Amino acid sequence: MDQVTSAQHWMAQQMGLIIPHLSVDCVVFGFHENQLRVLLLRFKNTEVWALPGGRVYREEPVNTAAVRVLEQRTGLRGLYLQQFHTFGDPDRLHSSDFQAILAQQNIRIEASSLLFDRTISVGYYALVEFAQVSPAPDQLSDECRWWDIRDLPKLFFDHNEIVAVAVRTLRQRLSYEPVGLNLLPEKFTMPELQRLYETLLGQPLDRRNFQKRMLAYDFLQRLDERRTGGAFKAPYLYRFDRERYAAVLQGGGLAFG
Amino acid sequence: MDQVTSAQHWMAQQMGLIIPHLSVDCVVFGFHENQLRVLLLRFKNTEVWALPGGRVYREEPVNTAAVRVLEQRTGLRGLYLQQFHTFGDPDRLHSSDFQAILAQQNIRIEASSLLFDRTISVGYYALVEFAQVSPAPDQLSDECRWWDIRDLPKLFFDHNEIVAVAVRTLRQRLSYEPVGLNLLPEKFTMPELQRLYETLLGQPLDRRNFQKRMLAYDFLQRLDERRTGGAFKAPYLYRFDRERYAAVLQGGGLAFG
Repeated sequence: MDQVTSAQHWMAQQMGLIIPHLSVDCVVFGFHENQLRVLLLRFKNTEVWALPGGRVYREEPVNTAAVRVLEQRTGLRGLYLQQFHTFGDPDRLHSSDFQAILAQQNIRIEASSLLFDRTISVGYYALVEFAQVSPAPDQLSDECRWWDIRDLPKLFFDHNEIVAVAVRTLRQRLSYEPVGLNLLPEKFTMPELQRLYETLLGQPLDRRNFQKRMLAYDFLQRLDERRTGGAFKAPYLYRFDRERYAAVLQGGGLAFG
Repeated sequence: MDQVTSAQHWMAQQMGLIIPHLSVDCVVFGFHENQLRVLLLRFKNTEVWALPGGRVYREEPVNTAAVRVLEQRTGLRGLYLQQFHTFGDPDRLHSSDFQAILAQQNIRIEASSLLFDRTISVGYYALVEFAQVSPAPDQLSDECRWWDIRDLPKLFFDHNEIVAVAVRTLRQRLSYEPVGLNLLPEKFTMPELQRLYETLLGQPLDRRNFQKRMLAYDFLQRLDERRTGGAFKAPYLYRFDRERYAAVLQGGGLAFG
């Protein structure tokens, strides 16, 4: 089976097995060296970029579908996907756009197919160190690329809105999620911690207030080591007291303002 | 048409008009005098309590369906419903339980009906001053009652889990939502503000830290009035600087920990 036939077969098979009117879409955020990016796929033979998304099988938990779809579409495994919002407007997708894209790929599906019916999509996000993962395009796509969240193209369907809501939710949940543990090396400096939160929040934070707040939470252990190699006075290294960090996040959460 | 026939007619009509496999459920939290309660309906002729929930019409935005369903089931209008989570496990509802409840109401629907198919439910919550609203049961229910969230009965389907997730989400979002403006009178004392947050968070807060934090946010205007009538020294009255309150909530948010 060549690629096009295989994709066509796959989609035809899907239609009998899936829950109608329902999909999942995944917003994978990549953090690296003070950049926040999002992973997009370009549909084969088009310039149309989209989030990795797909359908839910009849007996499959929706959360499981998100994990499976992300792996099938990008090869990424083992990411911690969190549900953040369900997109349920009747006009959120335009079946003619979708048909045009499928036609570009020599996939012909009847206009009456339930793939073109109104679809409610459950959104998930994950946050990874993007230097540590290697996404790859699936058979529906030509390319997989990390895009800066401040500079996205016009996306498929309502995917720009899905990304915007994911960014907003990520920022609100920063107070409760151990992003420091997941995205920083074991030992880090105070400026590195601050830049992580500044990048994710998308705004600068006052250096003195930030340091004062973080130290007051009492979850940072200052080590007897300094980061060397810079032009300025070498800053101290810290690491998280994991128990205390978890307790603060589960209690009132962090405040940055 | 008597009530039973009318309910039967209503449900039969629904089936042709609704999106299969999809529902909405509403968690209405009621706050009053330091109690946090949730609104439940008791199915007619049963002791089964459930959240007000229902189906989504084919052309209806899911968010609109939540508002309509809440009004149809409880008479409550104009509440600010916020989506918080979508419940998508295949085993979240047991069609035999549902058929038994319908049988109690003399509603007979074929076991093959899509009403008994796997259903994904989108959860919404609202927070109101419960002394200020008057819910009333619909034709499927005998009774509408506020239940203390710490003392719920075993609910229909997975509704206990839906309430638990709603409570958790409400608590996390407290940092970003103007609950003070919605649930307190225009003028209030520092102990009243503290008790509001303690009730919603479900945990005591240290009085001095709380006062210090709240004043540091600089969104409270102390008035030249005191609350009189108590046995103790009359506490000062405050009101919100709405602009500043909104700015803090939209910035880093409040921390209570």
